[in-house]
Formats: sequence, C-alpha cells, structure tokens
Amino acid sequence: MGNPPAVVLLSGGLDSTTVLAIAKHQGFEPHALSFDYGQRHGIELKAAQRVARSMGVSNHIVTTINLRSFGGSALTADIAVPHHESIEELSEAIPITYVPARNTIFLSFALALAETLGSGDIFIGVNALDYSGYPDCRPEYIRAYEAMANLATKAGVEGQHRLHIHTPLIELSKAEIIRLGLSLKVDYALTHSCYDPSPAGEPCGTCDSCLLREKGFREAGVDDPASKHWPT
Amino acid sequence: MGNPPAVVLLSGGLDSTTVLAIAKHQGFEPHALSFDYGQRHGIELKAAQRVARSMGVSNHIVTTINLRSFGGSALTADIAVPHHESIEELSEAIPITYVPARNTIFLSFALALAETLGSGDIFIGVNALDYSGYPDCRPEYIRAYEAMANLATKAGVEGQHRLHIHTPLIELSKAEIIRLGLSLKVDYALTHSCYDPSPAGEPCGTCDSCLLREKGFREAGVDDPASKHWPT
Repeated sequence: MGNPPAVVLLSGGLDSTTVLAIAKHQGFEPHALSFDYGQRHGIELKAAQRVARSMGVSNHIVTTINLRSFGGSALTADIAVPHHESIEELSEAIPITYVPARNTIFLSFALALAETLGSGDIFIGVNALDYSGYPDCRPEYIRAYEAMANLATKAGVEGQHRLHIHTPLIELSKAEIIRLGLSLKVDYALTHSCYDPSPAGEPCGTCDSCLLREKGFREAGVDDPASKHWPT
Repeated sequence: MGNPPAVVLLSGGLDSTTVLAIAKHQGFEPHALSFDYGQRHGIELKAAQRVARSMGVSNHIVTTINLRSFGGSALTADIAVPHHESIEELSEAIPITYVPARNTIFLSFALALAETLGSGDIFIGVNALDYSGYPDCRPEYIRAYEAMANLATKAGVEGQHRLHIHTPLIELSKAEIIRLGLSLKVDYALTHSCYDPSPAGEPCGTCDSCLLREKGFREAGVDDPASKHWPT
C-alpha cells in the first residue's frame, strides 16, 4: 500500500510550500495543484514548479483559469498594488489585492481533482492571523466549504469518505509557520511571496506580502534565504 | 435606475435557456456565463451564444477551464457516452457523464463574477427530478453552497447583500420546464441538449440527455422545434 493521495494547493509562496511539507510529513502522497489565473507574476508559478520538483512531487497540475476577464482585484486587473513604508501601515480592511472568490474557485478545482484521485484530503495554506482581511481565509468559511463539498460529490453522497480540508497554518503566526517549515527542512530560498516583483523576479519589499514575510523572518529570528538572491 | 444585475449560468441547453428567460422575466439584467471546459461538444457553446444573442444579453462571458486534465467523466475524458434503447434503461445511479465538482466550479466562477458586478443573485438551471443522479443538483447542496458563499466574499462579510442562488427549475419536471419556457416565449430551436452529437451537431437521440428531452416534449404535448433541423 502506498501513501494515501492528497491534493495540495501550491502557489509557490511561503505558506503553501510549508503546507506541502506538512502533508508529506503526515504521510500523504501529495498531488500539487497550481493556477495560472492571469496574475501579474508568472514568477509565482515558476516558484511553484521549483518547490514541487525539489520536494519530489510526482504529479503537479498547473491549470489555466481566466480571472482577469472578471476584474475586481489588484492581482488580476490593471489596478496598482499598494506599497507601504512599514508594516504598521497595513489596514484591517479587506485589501485591494483580494481576488473575488479566489479560494472558492481554487478549492473547487481541488475538489474535482480529489474526487478523481479517490482522495478525501485537500490541503490549503490559508491563515487567519496575518491575512485577517480576506474573508475566504477564516475557519468558519473553511468549515462551510467542507459541509458543501460533502454534499457536492459522488464520494460524499455514496459515503466513501468524508472530505476534509486541512488548514494546518490557520492559527499560526508567520514566524511560527517559518519555524515549523524549517523543522521540516523547507528551503524557503525556492519560494516567492511578492505581489509586485520586478520582471526578473526581484521582490519589491514594500507590498503587503513582502512586509509580512520580512516581519515573519525577523520574528522567527532567522534570515530569509530568498533575500540573498536580491542584494538591496 | 436600471434592472439589478444577476449572473446566469448558461450552457445553451433547454434548462439554462429557460432559466435565462425567467431571470429576465423577474426583472434582472442577466450577465450570462458559459464555460469551455474541454467538453466534447463545442456545439453546446455555439448554442449558448445563439441563445444569449437572441435574448438580448449584453454581457456574455465564455471562460475556458480545463477539466480534461482531471479526467473522471465521460463528458471530459476519453470514456464513451452511454446510449440506451429507451428511457426506461436510465439507471438511478450517478451516471458516468457526471463531471466531478462541475456545478461547484461553475458556481464559484459565478460567485466571482457576481461579486465583481456588485450582484447578490446567481441563477442556475439545476433540476433534482430528472437528474436525481447528480449530487450537485440537490436542494441541500444548493443551500450549503449559499451558506458557504455568504462567508466567502467581501460583500457577504461586509453585509452589503446576501447571496441568493436561484434554482427556479429545481422541483419541475422536464415537461413543466418546457411549458414554463414556452409561456415566456423561449425559442427551443436554438438550444442543444445532446451529450454525443455528430460533428455537424446532430443529436444522437439515445444518450440520457436526448432521451430526457424527448420525454419532456412528449409529456408537454408539443413538438421539439430543434428536431425539425435533424430529420430522422
């Protein structure tokens, strides 16, 4: 008997890479799923491919969806990504980088893949602490998604297995995520977090995601290995 | 003030075309959403375009998603569509034409579009009677989806509006759907239902969908206007 299959949503960022390591550590055979969704940064997808390869993922599906035609977010439409002097400037409101229904769309594809694989396990790196502004990162949203998914599928209806959405990072701080990942030998040099990188892939250092990453490494008391590629 | 916007999932089949007419009749400005999902029949998409045009839809989005890479269904993978001698042969089990998580994926894109439009109204032509084999056509699934969606979005969280998934056909027989559509002046000659048409678009007459359509028109006591294109 091999390890049971699980679907891991993999963006190539710090969080989803840590989740992939956790799924492997828990004894699952991870099938990674990434999206080319008209986001500004194909750089993120390259990071996802690096990560999947380095972690021995045998099945990495990259599927194209076009959220750009729907508009409504700084990550997919022609709206500027906000930059800040410091992390204290990040507001509590839902940020403009919120993509309408993004996690709902991602989880729905993960659900289709899980059903095809005969798997009842989906891993997603949502985090309710550092991204409290995103409605679709909250525990109550995830529980409601699970309830819906168990009514949506053949496996759920025929009682083959319950679908479980694993959110191992949901209550962790960025520093705790980094420490956990390091304990599982995650190579964060492979990951990419910036919403607004240079064409060569250099992080801006001033978007929400860069600021949260910098704070996380600072609080974890370790250097960000990715930053050594980008002397500032 | 114009009519409030609503998203209508439009396949170009008999059910979704009727739903589009209902949404218009209820005073909504319909934004139609169709999917090119690697299905066997681009013919279905052409029907959706004919229907949207004929019913004066000003915004019809066709978005491409690749369910084919996931496999698992006769509608997207290289599995034969089943044919039957008569409608009595249709089984109660979930058919092989079931596409894993299809309605969940479709509704998730509809949710993204609704949020972008500032709309809380999504119309979908699911039917629990004639398609009892599909888990994602049941009322309990739709209610669970609504509950999840109201936790997923900025509009739901900020209390701008409740999301409502309209399923006006869910308890109707095919004959009742046809009679309702005819009362709203739907031109069913424009619609396409067959899972396994000829390259020219001729319906096979023996797949589940053709058999249900034929039974519906027979029980409604009217001729199927689409059938006159295809002398048999």
